[in-house]
Parts: sequence; C-alpha cells; structure tokens
Amino acid sequence: MAKTKKSEFLRTPVEPLVAEAGLSTDALLQRMERISFQGRNLALARRVWERMLADDVTIFLGMAGALSAGGLRLVVADLIMTRAIDCLVSTGANLYHDLHETRGRRHYLGSPREDDSALQKARIDRVYDTYADEEEFVDNDEWIAEFALTLERRPYTSRELLNAIGGRLWSETSRHGILTAAYRAGVPVFCPAIADSSIGMGLSQARHRDAGAGQVDVIGDIIESANIVLGHPRTASIVLGGGTPKNFINQASLQAEYYDPAVAGHLYALQIVTDVPHFGGASGSSLHEAESWGKVAGDAEKVTVQADATLALPLLAAALATSARDALAARRPVQFDPSGPQVEMNGRRLSASRFEGAS
Amino acid sequence: MAKTKKSEFLRTPVEPLVAEAGLSTDALLQRMERISFQGRNLALARRVWERMLADDVTIFLGMAGALSAGGLRLVVADLIMTRAIDCLVSTGANLYHDLHETRGRRHYLGSPREDDSALQKARIDRVYDTYADEEEFVDNDEWIAEFALTLERRPYTSRELLNAIGGRLWSETSRHGILTAAYRAGVPVFCPAIADSSIGMGLSQARHRDAGAGQVDVIGDIIESANIVLGHPRTASIVLGGGTPKNFINQASLQAEYYDPAVAGHLYALQIVTDVPHFGGASGSSLHEAESWGKVAGDAEKVTVQADATLALPLLAAALATSARDALAARRPVQFDPSGPQVEMNGRRLSASRFEGAS
Amino acid sequence: MAKTKKSEFLRTPVEPLVAEAGLSTDALLQRMERISFQGRNLALARRVWERMLADDVTIFLGMAGALSAGGLRLVVADLIMTRAIDCLVSTGANLYHDLHETRGRRHYLGSPREDDSALQKARIDRVYDTYADEEEFVDNDEWIAEFALTLERRPYTSRELLNAIGGRLWSETSRHGILTAAYRAGVPVFCPAIADSSIGMGLSQARHRDAGAGQVDVIGDIIESANIVLGHPRTASIVLGGGTPKNFINQASLQAEYYDPAVAGHLYALQIVTDVPHFGGASGSSLHEAESWGKVAGDAEKVTVQADATLALPLLAAALATSARDALAARRPVQFDPSGPQVEMNGRRLSASRFEGAS
Amino acid sequence: MAKTKKSEFLRTPVEPLVAEAGLSTDALLQRMERISFQGRNLALARRVWERMLADDVTIFLGMAGALSAGGLRLVVADLIMTRAIDCLVSTGANLYHDLHETRGRRHYLGSPREDDSALQKARIDRVYDTYADEEEFVDNDEWIAEFALTLERRPYTSRELLNAIGGRLWSETSRHGILTAAYRAGVPVFCPAIADSSIGMGLSQARHRDAGAGQVDVIGDIIESANIVLGHPRTASIVLGGGTPKNFINQASLQAEYYDPAVAGHLYALQIVTDVPHFGGASGSSLHEAESWGKVAGDAEKVTVQADATLALPLLAAALATSARDALAARRPVQFDPSGPQVEMNGRRLSASRFEGAS
Repeated sequence: MAKTKKSEFLRTPVEPLVAEAGLSTDALLQRMERISFQGRNLALARRVWERMLADDVTIFLGMAGALSAGGLRLVVADLIMTRAIDCLVSTGANLYHDLHETRGRRHYLGSPREDDSALQKARIDRVYDTYADEEEFVDNDEWIAEFALTLERRPYTSRELLNAIGGRLWSETSRHGILTAAYRAGVPVFCPAIADSSIGMGLSQARHRDAGAGQVDVIGDIIESANIVLGHPRTASIVLGGGTPKNFINQASLQAEYYDPAVAGHLYALQIVTDVPHFGGASGSSLHEAESWGKVAGDAEKVTVQADATLALPLLAAALATSARDALAARRPVQFDPSGPQVEMNGRRLSASRFEGAS
Repeated sequence: MAKTKKSEFLRTPVEPLVAEAGLSTDALLQRMERISFQGRNLALARRVWERMLADDVTIFLGMAGALSAGGLRLVVADLIMTRAIDCLVSTGANLYHDLHETRGRRHYLGSPREDDSALQKARIDRVYDTYADEEEFVDNDEWIAEFALTLERRPYTSRELLNAIGGRLWSETSRHGILTAAYRAGVPVFCPAIADSSIGMGLSQARHRDAGAGQVDVIGDIIESANIVLGHPRTASIVLGGGTPKNFINQASLQAEYYDPAVAGHLYALQIVTDVPHFGGASGSSLHEAESWGKVAGDAEKVTVQADATLALPLLAAALATSARDALAARRPVQFDPSGPQVEMNGRRLSASRFEGAS
Repeated sequence: MAKTKKSEFLRTPVEPLVAEAGLSTDALLQRMERISFQGRNLALARRVWERMLADDVTIFLGMAGALSAGGLRLVVADLIMTRAIDCLVSTGANLYHDLHETRGRRHYLGSPREDDSALQKARIDRVYDTYADEEEFVDNDEWIAEFALTLERRPYTSRELLNAIGGRLWSETSRHGILTAAYRAGVPVFCPAIADSSIGMGLSQARHRDAGAGQVDVIGDIIESANIVLGHPRTASIVLGGGTPKNFINQASLQAEYYDPAVAGHLYALQIVTDVPHFGGASGSSLHEAESWGKVAGDAEKVTVQADATLALPLLAAALATSARDALAARRPVQFDPSGPQVEMNGRRLSASRFEGAS
Repeated sequence: MAKTKKSEFLRTPVEPLVAEAGLSTDALLQRMERISFQGRNLALARRVWERMLADDVTIFLGMAGALSAGGLRLVVADLIMTRAIDCLVSTGANLYHDLHETRGRRHYLGSPREDDSALQKARIDRVYDTYADEEEFVDNDEWIAEFALTLERRPYTSRELLNAIGGRLWSETSRHGILTAAYRAGVPVFCPAIADSSIGMGLSQARHRDAGAGQVDVIGDIIESANIVLGHPRTASIVLGGGTPKNFINQASLQAEYYDPAVAGHLYALQIVTDVPHFGGASGSSLHEAESWGKVAGDAEKVTVQADATLALPLLAAALATSARDALAARRPVQFDPSGPQVEMNGRRLSASRFEGAS
C-alpha cells in the first residue's frame, strides 16, 4: 500500500531549468512552472492570474510597500488600463508617489548607505535606496490642499476623492499613471488608510484653511467595497506586499457575506509578500488561514510568492502581457463609473450608506 | 596611527552572559547589555525607554500585528495606566481584540497547522496559532454598531470615538484593558486605519441602519496628532510591529514641523519589528532612514530590535517595571482630556481643524 | 456538530500577560506559555527541554551563527558542565571564538554601521555589531598550528581533535569556556565543517610546515555520531541557528536507522532559528518536514522558536536553570570519554570506522 | 550649499518599468536597472557578472540551499560548461541531488502542506515543496560507497574526489549535470562540509566495509583553494544562498593574503541570499562587513540581492546568456586540471600541503 502511495506522491518530476540566450519572459516563466520553491510559485501565480481573467470574476488588486516610488507605477497603471484588474486598493504612499510622478516630478536612484543627516540637510527624503526632493513633496501637499479646496464641503469616500484627483491630474498633465489610468478606465481606487499618508496631510492642510474642507468618509468606503462584492459575488484577490489593502479586500468579502450568505470568499487568491505567517501579523498571513475566516473560498486557487514585488512583478507582468493577451482582449469586465458620490457598477448605483441586497 | 584607531574601536568588551537560577528579568536584561546582536538591542531598548521616562517628552506608542489577541493587551494597558506612554496609535485589530476580551470573550491557543476548512465549518477564525469564535466577533460588531447609534450624528475623530468606546466599556464591564485604561488615564488613542478593521465594519453596520451614523473624521486625527506635537515639541516614539501606527506617529512630527520649524523629530526612537529595510516598505524601514525625513532627530537615541514583540516585549516590560519604577513615580506626564470633540492637552483645547501655532 | 467541534477547538484561552516589577525569568516564561506566537513558542521550548532532561535520552545541541562571539559561550559552557546537554555539534566559528576568549582575548561591542574600510585599515574584523582584533585572530591560528604540530601524524576525527584542544586550553588557562567545559565534562564536540573555519585554517598552517600534520577525519565523525545514536537509540535534538550542525545531528539519526530499524528519529526536537522554511534550505526547514525523513519521530514533541538566539536563549537558559534544577541534579546522563581515538560511551569504545550493531 | 548637494544626490531618476508583451529576459533586466529595491539589485547583479567575465579574474561560485533538487542544476552546469565561472564550492546536498538526477532519478513537485507521517510511511523525503524517493536515495548512498571502494586507500581532497565522481558519472551516464560538467570542463569543485551530507554518508558506508576507504582530506581543500587564489590573485565571488560555500570562498582569499600581501580580497562580489545581516550569521552578512576582514577589496563592485535563488537566478542566467555571449566567447579562463591528487592550474601543480608563494 505504501508503494501505491509513493507513486501517487511522485507524479510530476522537477524539470531542471535551462536558461539559454534569447529566452522570452513568457518562456522563462513557463519553464519555472516545473522547478521548486519561490520560482515555481511565481510561475503558478501567472497561471492563476490567467484563470482569473478567463473566469467571470471581479479582480481586486492590493498594493503596499514603496512600489510606485520604486518604479512599478506604470506596471500597475497598465494593469488598470488593460483591465487585468477591476478595482485597486492601495496605501496612500503609493498613490501619492504616483501623483508625484504624474505631476512631472521624479524619484531617484540612491544608496541605502548614504549619510542620512547629509540627506536631511539637503532636504532629501530616503526610502531605502530611493531618494525624493522634499521640497517637491511639500509642493505636492500644497497641490492636494488646493485641489481639496475646490471640492464640495462634504465628506467624500476615498474612492470618490481619488477619482476626482485622477481626473484633475489627467486634465492638467495628460500623463499616464495609476490615478489617471484608473480615472480613464473607470476603475475604482480605495485608500482605507488615507489618513496615514501625505495625501491625508494635504487634505489636513486644506482643512486648516477651511474647516469644512478635507473630509473623507472612510466608513463609506467599507460599504461601497462590500457592495461591489454583493453586486457580483464572484471575486479574486491579488495582493502585493500585504498591509491595509490586503485586509481591506478580504474585509469587503466578509462584510458582503454577512449580508448575503451566497458570498463565499475569493475564488482566486494570489499574494506576493515578503512577510511571514509565524509572527501573527496580517501582512504575512497565509491564504490558508484566510480560509478559516471565509475570506478565501475553500476550493480557491491560491498562490503565495515570497518575494520582493520589485523583483517578482516585472517578470510576472511581462509574461502575463504575452500569455494573457487573448484573454484580456476577450474579457468583459464589470463596468464601473466611480466619478460620483455613488459608484456605479454595470449601470447600477451602489450605496455608500447601505449594504445592498440587505433588507 | 592604525594602532590608535584600533584601541578606539575596541573599547567595550562583550561580557559573556551567565544565566544562573533565580535570575530576575531586570538582572537578565542588564547582563544582555554586554552581549551582541538582537539580545543587546533589546537590553538597550530598556535603557532608551528609561531615558524617555526621565526626560520631558511626550511618548507615543504604536502597535501593529496581532498583539492584543496574542496576549499582550494587559502589558499595553499597564503601560497606559502607569503613564509609561502618553499617546497610543494602533491598528483597528488590536483595539477590536482588546474590546473582545474586555467584553468578557477570549482568544484561544490553537495550532498553526489546523485544517482551515474544519475551522471554517466550526466558525472559528484563526490568526496563526490563535483562535476566536466568529459568532462572538459578529456580536462585537453588533455591539459597536449599537453603540455608534447612540452617538451624535456628526463625524468623530477616531480619537474621540475610541475614548467614547473606552468609556462605555468601562461603565459596562469595569474591566482593565487597553481602551478602558486609556479612558481612565486620559490617554488619547488614534486609529488612522480604522476603516480597515472590524471596528470600521461595526460602524458601517450602524450606517446601514442610519445613514447619518458611523462617521469618522480621520483627517481630524492628523491635525490633532500634529497639534499634540506642536503643544509640546519634545517627543519620543516607540513602535511595535510597524504598520500604519509607525508612519502616523512620524507623520505627526513631520506635519508639526511644517508649521513650526522648532519641531525637530523624535528625540528618542525605539522599534521592535520583524520586517527588514531592504524591500523598501515603511514597516521595516530603519530609524536612520527616518532621519533623512526629519521624523527622528539627528542626535536621537535610536534602537531597533529585530524580534517578534510577543517574545521581546514581555521581557522588556518586566525589566522596565522594576528599573523604571522610580522614574515612573517621579514622572509628570502631559495631561490629556480626550473625552470631547476637541482633545485637551494640559488644559488647552487642541483643534481638529487647524494646526496650532500656525498663523 | 459544528457546535461540538467549536468547543473542542476553543479549549485553552490566551491568558493576557502581566509584567509587573520583580518578576523572575522563571515566572515570566511560565506566563508566556499562555500567550501566542513566538513568545509562546519560547515558553514551550523550556518545557520540552525539561522533559528531555527527565527522560532517558541523549541530548544533542547544535549551534550555528556567531553565538560565541556574541556573548553566549558561557551559557553553552554551563549547559555542558551541568549536563543539560550530552553532545555538542558546532560550526567552527563558534569553537574558534570560544578558544579566542578562553585564551584571554575578547570580542568587542561595536556598531553595525561603522566604515568598514576604516576597520580594515585598523585590522579589525566585524561581525555585524561585534569587533575582533585581527592580529589576535592571527595569533590564534598560530596557536592552533603549533598545537597541531604536537599531535600524532595521523587523522583525528574533529571530535578527538577538539577534545585535545579543550585539554590543552584547560591546562594552559584553567578558564571556563565551551571547549574546556566539554573537555572536563567528557562531552563530545563535533565540527563537521571544520574545514570552513579558522580552526581549519590553523590546521592548514600546520600542514604547511609539516605535510603529515593537520589531518582531520570528518568521515570518522559521521560514523562516531551515528554510533552514539546506535549505542542508545533515544535521542533529542536542540538546534540554535540551523546550519551544518542541524543537519549533522539529524544525519546521525538517519545513518543509525539505516543500521538499526529500531532507531526512530529524535523523540524531542527544539530549534531556535531565524531562517524560514519556504526557500527550501535546511537551516529554516520545519520539524514536520524532518518527520518525512525519519529524522524526528512522528510523535515527537517539537517546538520551533523563530527568533535570534541572542535574544531567546538568555531567557530560556535562565528560566531553565531555575525550573530544571532538580531534574538536572537527578539526571543520569550517558557517560562519555572522548579523549582517545575512539570515543567511549558508558565504558564501551565506539568505532570510527564501523557502524555498531551492524553485521 | 545644500542646493548643490541636492542636485548631486538626485542624479539618476527611477525610470518606471513598462512590461509589454514579447519582452525578452535580457530587455526586462535592462529595464530593471532603473527601478529600486531588489529588482534593481538583480539587474545590477547581471552587470557585475558581465564585468567579471570581461576582466581577468578567477570566478568562484558558491551554492547552498536546495538548488539542485529545486531545478537549478542545469543552470549551474551550463555556467560551468560555458566557463561563466571557474571554480565551484557547494554544499554536499546540492552535489548529491545533482548525482541523483544524473543517475537518472528525479525529484518531484509536491505540496509543502502534505501530511509528513504519510510521506514517511511511503518513504518519501520532503524538502519544502519537493519530494524524493528515499529508496532511490539509499541506492545513491550505495553507489557512492561502491565507488569509494574503487579508489585508492588514501585521503582525497573533496576536490579530487568530486572530480573522480564526476568522471565516473560521465562514463556511466553521459548525462549533463553539475559534476559531469565540472569533470568535462576541468572546473574544480570543493565541498568543505562534505561530512554533513549524504555524500559523506555514502563514504562512511564504504569505510564500514573497509576501514581504509572513504578518507577525505578537507584540510587539503583549504590549501588548494588558497593556492588557486595565490596562483592568480585576482578573484571574484558569486554566492547563492550563503552557508559554508560563502565563507569557504572568502577564507581562500584570507588565507592567501596571509601568505601574499598582494592578495587584496575579491575584486567583484555578488550574492543572492535570503538571510539578513542583523542576526550576525555568516550567511546573511553584508559584503561591506566582508571588507573589514579583507575578504572583499575596498573598491570592489558589490551587489547583494535579497531573494530566493530559484526566483532570481533563472532570470539572471537567461539575461546573462544573451548579454554575455560575446564576453564568454572572448574569455580566456584559467585552465585547470582537477583530475589528480594535485590540481593543475595553467599547467602548474598546486600543492595540497603547502601554501604556494610562501617560503
């Protein structure tokens, strides 16, 4: 009997990878499906993403960590424009750094070992090996404050606010970026921890000038995001880096399930994280643990890639651009209009104050 | 000349640790000051915290990761009651799990390898090796929703809201915990990412019943926290686990500096984190990097301990309880009254819509 | 039925830790048994070690990482003298740094951010935040070479060689340390990767002077270590930091099992590591994975603590010194005489060229 | 003045990556040179390797972790055959798993969450998500033992032994692999920790049958490896995964420097590791720290990539195969003959008992 079992366990041999000249990213990732450890996981991630695209699901992308400053903002912007994803949840920093570059400013390659007091004197802000001009950041904050003062004196969900910022950036610059792409593609962007970011700081400076300005309705974001799930209870989750976006995407699923037992958790779940499960934090938590909560469906396809997204995502996105071209062309994604106080989903307005489908 | 230099570099020998029976936590940590690597860093963390307590500074504590569920909520509650800290910034999860236990529910020791679909069927939520009863969580959400419906139909900063929740919990249960201790000690508690938590979910359920309920003014939190720094521009930062609290505490300093150049960053900075700097995320960022931003003063005493807080904090807190007893007794902390729409600091009301000290 | 299951899963509540003044290390670790994550694992590690001591098992300790330089050499030396362990497997560096201090030299506390070219000019060797005088290291190498030239011109197992070095150090210095304690307590010390260390370098310098000197029979070490298991096939494994010692201890068990099917893997397994399983390396591999190989018995008590040993071991050893005092006094450990070409175990000589119990 | 400084710091902007369809691995890695964090480091690693190939240096490659089992053995074998490296230092496991596959056996893709007691019963050995047939491993050990019995009854350095094994494997199988490629290309392979591996176990089984068999002279390996550096004191180090190979390569440099002050440390150093510096272990140590020891030259080009090699190496090797084609064709590598008791380097025999260039 052990014999039988052995052959069952030993079905798919590792196929030693060969890395000859001229290899395309697509072919490389194909070969990596037959190796082990994180190389294999990255290759499987591509396949899971492809299956999301071929299936009738709403794809949430969460992003945390300094990915925009680090050079991945156009990768994400392209995922948005091609509708390889349907809804973005981000930390404030990633959206702020996107705005910084869309406004024509740059981040710079630096050293992680520079003398920080010298940088401080030169008014340069360091993010590991990446530098930014602090005065340009101050100017962004001012731009955000000025813009906020042009808005109505009422709370905006982060989704409505970010769509408005995207629109303004697009009309001012016509530059491609995350927020402008989301604006143009009608992809909703949520930022649940907006108060913990320079966007929040800019809004607070608007408030400083006018006590009625700079109001954000983050509780409305919870309801809206759950309503997106309730509106089409077939979802997928892609997470880069953990953080608040990871949990917020799962929370939308849980909250929706509370009002509609038909919601069963994400049907696909993919995460590229560097954090680990054994310290108990949400960023590193396993997708299996998510099953116990009902965040992820029991039979969901799940892949965790333990890697820095700046290394893993470029390869993943390049290979996907090749292999998912047809699937992307054929895809009929959910249609959103995130421009008003109530997001529209396939022509239907979703409430920010009531969970849909609930009596 | 190299000879001279050598003796300068080789001043303080490692003192091999001896771990005999009957050793107190205080004595152990004293011995660990003369060993290397993370053991030494933990020992130095105690000394830095002592110096914070002896100096005239406002001490911010940030907490992220599942510390409350994991058994550290009374450590934090005691730090609050003894005023070993002055202001808490937390993720929503830690405050929610605190509320859960203050309401008489428990978290449970489990296995990180349990079958998650079995847990899901039994309606048990897993956080690595810790379990909770999902139905009790649903009941908490309901409690939060009910409580939110008793509040005025206006935005509350997270600080005001959490103080009110602490008050209600205290009147209902008279149990010691983070939120009740903060309420009793007049310690402000901020939760910038409240929308990414079950507290936020509870508030959204209140909104579902009454469209005017469950409003949180997280931008007000930014202004209030900066005003706390402006009100006494000598600060210290203690961070457990990174996340939104780490950045929010630093942001308060940066935003205050924008309005008052006398603000120079935290004079002391201590963090216990498991994340690392080289992936660029804020959670793992070094305290040196924080210098470039002006978040931490150039000559600040800084210690990073790379460790799980559930392992490091118990020893640190126990040793500190012994060695800082006199400093704690002698300490004259900033007096807060966080009960109203405007927090009071040493008898003065701080605005949530205008940065103080700004024209 | 789910109801029943729920109560089965929710049996042992987390007991929030209180860290008041005057707490002993023993009491602290006792309290940590009821919290979660790595704090709990450290507390369980103490209990597992206690049970090893109370049971009739041979306890192997593996140590990797810069623990001796970092200040833990007397902790390990004391574990040896009190026979809290029975056999040590170490990297060469830890034994070399032990020899360095036993010879009266020191390691020094330094900064991990020092200018390394300045250190290089001053001839100081840096191990993260620990410094050593390179000229003293050169002198150690010379001492080792000189000593090797006094030995017979035949291969020595690392075990025999290290016992001889311990004896010489003891006669020269009468100082307590790992090698001198092992010599005095008759505890065998293996160093399978001795060629990858400064001890190996010293031996190579002896060979340079006399082509017949500096011979090490590392294959003999494999046979001897397996014979220790075969001599008493009830074993326990404690691993600090992974590396070659972790695998060598497991290998002894596997090789013994090959010759005696009664050998069933370690009955207890405890590891304190910072490495993680998901990259496939042996250092971070889980104790469950070890079960598939037969390195660890299926029903073995197993604990992995994910932590730096310089932080975890001092607390663990201090608490154990208190709580295991009686067990240590009552313990009747295996008696070794590792002084000759053949190690003696309970009076019986073990071959270094034949596996015992094999036909 | 701060103004001037700012422009100096902000010279090279991050260039947001675009990942369109059809991208080659070469082009992708080229783009990654202008992003941040580990993605950038991987791209820089390619450039450093290219410069090694164009310069007159001996390139050492160290490999640790389960890379052969995981599917990278042909990548390494190709690096050997094309002389993209000159000398290999490996853990025993990687060479053993290479031998396993060259003998026609396979490793298999599995799950990291399988029930290990079921695997144990089926006699399957698990390495995270990779499985192997234990009976085939036993057969390998037997093959090694049989082969060792055909050798002369004298100590072999691991280098000589592994060359002989490679020769036998080539004559038996004519299959491409690490050991057969090294045999054919005349590339020396060292395994300093051979006693901590199944190769060592196989040798011990030969010793069991014949007390004069299975002798390994690991001290000779130290002298030989240093003599390779002394023979051409311009070296480069590439390290995958840390472990004993990382230190052994550095040790060769240090030992050579002891006998010839002209040796100045590696002129290029590149490592792909997942371990971190702050716990003090050698695997995670920074290349800057290596400077203090003289392992790496002060002005050496250095890159550390913090990533799993199964993810990073495939992309690196594929891009290098394209961009270094001409450099490889033009390269005039050191010529070795590692087949005898004394390795030959450019026609000159290097002693295994005396350091060359030493009086």
